[in-house]
Amino acid sequence: MTKQFVEKITFLRVNVLRMCGTPGQTVQPVNLILISLVTDLLPAFGGEEITRKFLQEVSNILWAYIHKSNQRNSKVLDFHHPHQLKAGLEGLNMELPDQPETLEQILVDCRDTLKYGVRTGHPRFFNQLSSGLDVVGLAGEWLTSTANSNMFTYEVSPVFVLMEEVLLKKMQNIVGWLEDEGDGIFCPGGTISNLYSILLARYHFYPEVKTRGMGALPQLALFTSEHSHYSLKKSAAVLGLGTDNMVMVKSYYEVIPASVSQGLVPIYVNATAGTTVYGAFDPLNDIADICHRHSLWMHVDAAWGGGLLISDRHRMKLQGIERAWSVTWNPHKMMGVPLQCSAILVKKRGLLKECNELGAEYLFQKDKHYDVSYDTGDKSIQCGRHVDAFKFWLMWKAKGSEGFEAQINKCLENAEYLYDQLQRRTDFKLVFDSKPEHCTVCFWYTPPSLRCLPAGPEKEAKLHQLAPWIKARMMEKGSAMVGYQPLGGKVNFFRCVLSNPATQQEDIDFLLDQIVQLGQYL
Amino acid sequence: MTKQFVEKITFLRVNVLRMCGTPGQTVQPVNLILISLVTDLLPAFGGEEITRKFLQEVSNILWAYIHKSNQRNSKVLDFHHPHQLKAGLEGLNMELPDQPETLEQILVDCRDTLKYGVRTGHPRFFNQLSSGLDVVGLAGEWLTSTANSNMFTYEVSPVFVLMEEVLLKKMQNIVGWLEDEGDGIFCPGGTISNLYSILLARYHFYPEVKTRGMGALPQLALFTSEHSHYSLKKSAAVLGLGTDNMVMVKSYYEVIPASVSQGLVPIYVNATAGTTVYGAFDPLNDIADICHRHSLWMHVDAAWGGGLLISDRHRMKLQGIERAWSVTWNPHKMMGVPLQCSAILVKKRGLLKECNELGAEYLFQKDKHYDVSYDTGDKSIQCGRHVDAFKFWLMWKAKGSEGFEAQINKCLENAEYLYDQLQRRTDFKLVFDSKPEHCTVCFWYTPPSLRCLPAGPEKEAKLHQLAPWIKARMMEKGSAMVGYQPLGGKVNFFRCVLSNPATQQEDIDFLLDQIVQLGQYL
Repeated sequence: MTKQFVEKITFLRVNVLRMCGTPGQTVQPVNLILISLVTDLLPAFGGEEITRKFLQEVSNILWAYIHKSNQRNSKVLDFHHPHQLKAGLEGLNMELPDQPETLEQILVDCRDTLKYGVRTGHPRFFNQLSSGLDVVGLAGEWLTSTANSNMFTYEVSPVFVLMEEVLLKKMQNIVGWLEDEGDGIFCPGGTISNLYSILLARYHFYPEVKTRGMGALPQLALFTSEHSHYSLKKSAAVLGLGTDNMVMVKSYYEVIPASVSQGLVPIYVNATAGTTVYGAFDPLNDIADICHRHSLWMHVDAAWGGGLLISDRHRMKLQGIERAWSVTWNPHKMMGVPLQCSAILVKKRGLLKECNELGAEYLFQKDKHYDVSYDTGDKSIQCGRHVDAFKFWLMWKAKGSEGFEAQINKCLENAEYLYDQLQRRTDFKLVFDSKPEHCTVCFWYTPPSLRCLPAGPEKEAKLHQLAPWIKARMMEKGSAMVGYQPLGGKVNFFRCVLSNPATQQEDIDFLLDQIVQLGQYL
Repeated sequence: MTKQFVEKITFLRVNVLRMCGTPGQTVQPVNLILISLVTDLLPAFGGEEITRKFLQEVSNILWAYIHKSNQRNSKVLDFHHPHQLKAGLEGLNMELPDQPETLEQILVDCRDTLKYGVRTGHPRFFNQLSSGLDVVGLAGEWLTSTANSNMFTYEVSPVFVLMEEVLLKKMQNIVGWLEDEGDGIFCPGGTISNLYSILLARYHFYPEVKTRGMGALPQLALFTSEHSHYSLKKSAAVLGLGTDNMVMVKSYYEVIPASVSQGLVPIYVNATAGTTVYGAFDPLNDIADICHRHSLWMHVDAAWGGGLLISDRHRMKLQGIERAWSVTWNPHKMMGVPLQCSAILVKKRGLLKECNELGAEYLFQKDKHYDVSYDTGDKSIQCGRHVDAFKFWLMWKAKGSEGFEAQINKCLENAEYLYDQLQRRTDFKLVFDSKPEHCTVCFWYTPPSLRCLPAGPEKEAKLHQLAPWIKARMMEKGSAMVGYQPLGGKVNFFRCVLSNPATQQEDIDFLLDQIVQLGQYL
């Protein structure tokens, strides 16, 4: 710090302290924060009081945010373009200073950050598969960050490591694997979970790949459906398999003929339980039959659909999942766990460790005084690993399996409600006529001016521009958020996600009315 | 929920409410939580009051934990073996119920989780490269989890995306790249950052790998030093290059001869700035010369050492880092940012995107109403990505570069203090006689019984058992935590990490005294 700056701060502090009272007396918290710097906080000597006050102020700010996010009349977002926020016109100065800000300014920065962000927990946020703000999950995440630990060894995360084990075991049971089967790990998102599945399949068939690399292997082929998530292709690129060799099929019966015709060795098939856009479920038993017949690794990407396994009413959509060799399941999607929380589950016990372990001696010493089989970090492709298990564990305690089931059923009822409304209205058109299998509902809005146009390229072109235009206005108003995209031959349509437990039927009505209000004169 | 359970809860609620006051009156918070369930919290209708109380209680629990973690007389941990915790002997029941627990029980679970965890912020936690508990960083993480958003697009994380950009640009400047150079991304840990560097090097030399896979490439060779982190080998395994082809060299002058003799094509050299165990710095300029001469990708793994770039006193240890093509830098290590926060910085702009993008249309629509170059998610190998930037940004605001510098200098002073103490004492022996370059100090303790033994296998064997034994007793007492490991021909030695800004000289004295106290009669 420059001498000048230190003098300025010292002057301020002395004077404000004088105004607040004589030494020894209690100083008003706001004033204390006004003149304090980060160096006054713990671990600074005597920093207890100011630290407590500071964290209390932070909690107040967060509570106000949570409260407002749950109020329907508050905005979902206060949209600004990148150049506006970067210019600091709105008071939020992004630049990183050489010298410290006061704690008071830090609190202002926190408020501003929330002000210009997006309320993903708002009942009218329909934009992403992950939405909502579970209060117990949030408490779990606050605790996790306060514990500030790492999943690599039992010695630094004894409780979290055991909780992860309990959760993974529970999830494996729900998938339907036998008592002596099943392994897994939490990892940073569904893409990485899917990447693990391919990594494990490759290692299972060709363990020499670990040391010798792909050069020692024949040309492999992997299969997934056209509607599967792009993480399958991305993983193929990362793992050195090549996106061309992640073959996108329309029907899983193409798997073997396609391999043969291209001279490739098929090893892996991904089936999707809950596709990203349509929320559709692949026929898992049929795919399992094919995989069984040809000894292929069967993976089920249930990142989005996995939650339905907890519902007696909906789990039959995933029939056959117990035959998979690995499963991706993201509790941060359909179960409302705060970001992020994604599991890769593996049927064959021990494979994860064999595939990934390198036995670094500074972490995984064998001569520790406890059972080192609980040092699970070497199962991971990461070294340090964030604690994603605790918030999920705490939510399970608070809800019970039955609470999760009720929550999931309600979300699916909301999707059916939206479907019913869309069917009734002539100004909307469903992308599929059948009842939604999951919590995504896809549809077009056709304003009066378009309804009279004859089907053809002109109408299609206009329809294509409509969804982005309406979404943009909706974001500018801040009234709601909903996704859109084209797919295959279909022009831009809305994809409404109903995974937010805060959403009620009135919010769904509101969304449709908003779309009409914004789009009816186009 | 079973009928019986609902009845029980209803009965309890009615009666406690009766005891608390007549309807309309304010109910005491503790009682309210005692009888409430998760379904009473927001978004439930009328859930404001109980949600506020619940989060307040959670904050109180966390504050008590933070306070205690900063008290030297509190334990660093309350050690229990896995079977003890699993048996629930200590009152913490890990099992996942079908039916909900009350919020009161959830708070008890939170307290127990913290009680049996490890206080990684305690001034006497010397066990891991990441330690300490920065209060502003923590506030940042609480806010991040409350915002519960995702880094893939500007539309859901406008502020966080811009903050990431500002931070990455700042880090690139500090590395020393030119104004028109530099790109990067935050990712889940140093291992994934290192993995990116290899992924990018491979793509840079062989862009066809993305679509065609490793089968289209010659046999590649990558180089790193014997003391580098195991993530280099792990990444080589994951990416399909094979651990054998990540050649561990004693001297970087072996790079080209080793490639030639094995018939491999060298593409990549990793240099380490701050090795994991010894904290040593590779000679970056010499390595850059070799890489330049042979057109190899030079990566610097500065996961541990990167923080020193901010210190005028220490940054010369990383001289030459500006010549690297990519850099790993973990602010969650030497800068004390809460876990996790790791960046991969890339000199060549645009390469990250080219290498990883797949352009999923449901996320990265080109017809959005804002500048979609801020939809940075397709630069990542992940899809959803946790917000790791905000806490770091907030800390930078609160400390300024100068505050970070002071913090880092102090940690290095602590390391020198420990070094001085060890030199003075005859019962300790340094693994290296030279002054530590970084915040890790490695040493043996030799109790009187060993000091008189002649050098030889017997003495070595006894010395080898000593560190694990002392560490185990220290953990059981809960007085401190420090790591140990063997390395190369060296038997188990202590590795004391001094990255925790809470640590004072008295804590270092305490550690040495503890070791003597526990080990002197062995």
